[in-house]
Amino acid sequence: MVKISTKKETSVPSEGVSYHERRALDRLIFFSDGVFAIAITLLVLNVALPAIQPGSASTDLPSALLATVPRLYAYALSFLVIGAYWMAHQRTFHYIERYDHTLAWLNLLFLLFVALIPFPTGVLGAYGDQLVAVILYAATLAIIGLLLSALWLYASHNDRLVAKMLTEQDIHATTLRSAVPPVMFLASIGIAFASIPAAEVAWVLVFVLSAVRRPHPVA
Amino acid sequence: MVKISTKKETSVPSEGVSYHERRALDRLIFFSDGVFAIAITLLVLNVALPAIQPGSASTDLPSALLATVPRLYAYALSFLVIGAYWMAHQRTFHYIERYDHTLAWLNLLFLLFVALIPFPTGVLGAYGDQLVAVILYAATLAIIGLLLSALWLYASHNDRLVAKMLTEQDIHATTLRSAVPPVMFLASIGIAFASIPAAEVAWVLVFVLSAVRRPHPVA
Amino acid sequence: MVKISTKKETSVPSEGVSYHERRALDRLIFFSDGVFAIAITLLVLNVALPAIQPGSASTDLPSALLATVPRLYAYALSFLVIGAYWMAHQRTFHYIERYDHTLAWLNLLFLLFVALIPFPTGVLGAYGDQLVAVILYAATLAIIGLLLSALWLYASHNDRLVAKMLTEQDIHATTLRSAVPPVMFLASIGIAFASIPAAEVAWVLVFVLSAVRRPHPVA
Amino acid sequence: MVKISTKKETSVPSEGVSYHERRALDRLIFFSDGVFAIAITLLVLNVALPAIQPGSASTDLPSALLATVPRLYAYALSFLVIGAYWMAHQRTFHYIERYDHTLAWLNLLFLLFVALIPFPTGVLGAYGDQLVAVILYAATLAIIGLLLSALWLYASHNDRLVAKMLTEQDIHATTLRSAVPPVMFLASIGIAFASIPAAEVAWVLVFVLSAVRRPHPVA
Repeated sequence: MVKISTKKETSVPSEGVSYHERRALDRLIFFSDGVFAIAITLLVLNVALPAIQPGSASTDLPSALLATVPRLYAYALSFLVIGAYWMAHQRTFHYIERYDHTLAWLNLLFLLFVALIPFPTGVLGAYGDQLVAVILYAATLAIIGLLLSALWLYASHNDRLVAKMLTEQDIHATTLRSAVPPVMFLASIGIAFASIPAAEVAWVLVFVLSAVRRPHPVA
Repeated sequence: MVKISTKKETSVPSEGVSYHERRALDRLIFFSDGVFAIAITLLVLNVALPAIQPGSASTDLPSALLATVPRLYAYALSFLVIGAYWMAHQRTFHYIERYDHTLAWLNLLFLLFVALIPFPTGVLGAYGDQLVAVILYAATLAIIGLLLSALWLYASHNDRLVAKMLTEQDIHATTLRSAVPPVMFLASIGIAFASIPAAEVAWVLVFVLSAVRRPHPVA
Repeated sequence: MVKISTKKETSVPSEGVSYHERRALDRLIFFSDGVFAIAITLLVLNVALPAIQPGSASTDLPSALLATVPRLYAYALSFLVIGAYWMAHQRTFHYIERYDHTLAWLNLLFLLFVALIPFPTGVLGAYGDQLVAVILYAATLAIIGLLLSALWLYASHNDRLVAKMLTEQDIHATTLRSAVPPVMFLASIGIAFASIPAAEVAWVLVFVLSAVRRPHPVA
Repeated sequence: MVKISTKKETSVPSEGVSYHERRALDRLIFFSDGVFAIAITLLVLNVALPAIQPGSASTDLPSALLATVPRLYAYALSFLVIGAYWMAHQRTFHYIERYDHTLAWLNLLFLLFVALIPFPTGVLGAYGDQLVAVILYAATLAIIGLLLSALWLYASHNDRLVAKMLTEQDIHATTLRSAVPPVMFLASIGIAFASIPAAEVAWVLVFVLSAVRRPHPVA
């Protein structure tokens, strides 16, 4: 099952990357992992129990718990979406081995929308049957995907910040792959005008696709 | 007291694990530690003081504080449960030294339920005398344990992702051990139908068992 | 100002500490740092603006902001207290170089009370003039200090988990030092019965003492 | 675009920095990164949807979402401000390679105001048209900048904690650079008395300036 690709050596750190550039990149990755971990864990704050009259818990608690199901669904969906984008971020930085200011700002802009996810998730959990909630959600996730693509295009253009040994093919494959989630989320906005449940199926397809397609053993 | 087992060398990183696989595994472990640390710390948000009439703090504050005791109990319980699962996660990844996509997704699913714990904890803190609250809590914790067992079975099957030097016995012992918490939590659901306090005793036994049994000095 | 003590070499990692024990200790320290960082940052959630009537912001906002001053004071106090305990934790683990299960559980119990701090801080911010709020706060912080002392006593007893080269004097000095904050917080409870402001002065003394006394350049 | 400066070697760790001092500094940086990541991610909790009457979501949700725009603006502004200060912190600690107690306390004081940012951000999001909200926000951010400058002055004075090879010029350039954000935020307070929108333009200039000026490839 785990095929050890012979291409793996392309991503061992190249000679000539300074101690400091490596260290700055490590802090950036660490900071990003922290934001991902916090945003994903804050999602649970959206799953609150509706208020119950004092004294009537034994009759009202079961239905109050059932009423949280749409919020639990939104929780699970966003948890997996953030997780998938975290893996995509890992995959992207797998090839990046240099650091510059523009990379740091693009990454920060990317994280700005990642950390925002609890907001559209809360709206979706409360008003999942409303078109505007679905659009807000899909648009946020599409922007995240587009920013990650932009980050990759910036880093890989003319081998700006990536490993020298990376082939053109590797770069193109990663570019194409990074375009799949934002395209799917943008498409789901169009679909939502016809059918909200169909749009949500498109979201689930994003995970299936990202879980299935894995050319490299690590990424 | 600290016996240095001669078996310890089985878990020093093997030759042939690439720089990148190690690095991907490190980010996964780091991300998991982050989610654990945040989920465990968010629990405190469930411990809120009931509202007090302005001006009557000197008479009402003591009883308002007493009213938080069930929530403090639920806080402490969940803190220790998450802590115990964190240690079990550490023990599991102690033996894993390879990374693949399926491992990452199983781990993410595991974390999805870890990060959810503040929700059933809040319900238990508010309605600890209700059967449905007890079942929700025990079921969430059983699922977490089952997912960790599944992750270990996946990783250890045919030495898929574990150290080559690991013996069959080590693998079986770890499998058995990982099954104890979910079995206890599932059993507590049955017990709860007879007696809620007895079910909670079963939960506490999970820690006692996991604190007592420690075949290896590190794990 | 920064004297490089020749004693520093006592805490370089000794030979014979396994790769795995070091790694388990690193994850424990990392997890603890995470809990500290999150607990300290969650404190801000206690600083909320009182509700203002729509339309009257220009007249009511200044006084609403003034009304947050006690909560800001409680925020700053707890931020510094958690920070001081974080430094004390760092100092303690500076000398610890072995890992066992009991250490992990003592550390978890210690973190249970660290992560709880936002609760007594919120109570203090809202009802700082009430004796019971002051006692709750001081008791929580005393328990944290006592648990850190217990952890150190466990780790240093018969050189159980500390560096072999550590002298008896080093161990006694660290033990004494770790006793100062809990003793001060316990004393402040007695003082509070006479005067709440005097008790709060005792809290501030904890920082002053811990900031001033620093026998070792690092710790 | 990425010029590899020959000056970079000035910041490779010098000989003679002990294992322990490096480790203490690493924990301090790690803890700071954690506080930054959490504070930046907690900002989203300020972006809540106004309550909507049950049953009228289809008519009221769009306007409720529009009503969150000022809060989204405050979110994005503070996200970028914290991000910019995080980069400035990274830049500052890029040159620091020794650790002492005073540095730890100055850093803690700096983090106290960083972790506070969600509070003035919430006030600004709710009452962005009020002078006092603008002053509170600008003052908080000015204090953060001043504390980072103070930390740098302390660390660099007489090469107290910085690399020996650092030139006077490097130190002066970093000092000047660290003074820009607090001066801009202080100036914006004066500007706000004349025009609140003009003050906000000054804030945006802080990013533009900090994004543009980058003498060193890493920092």
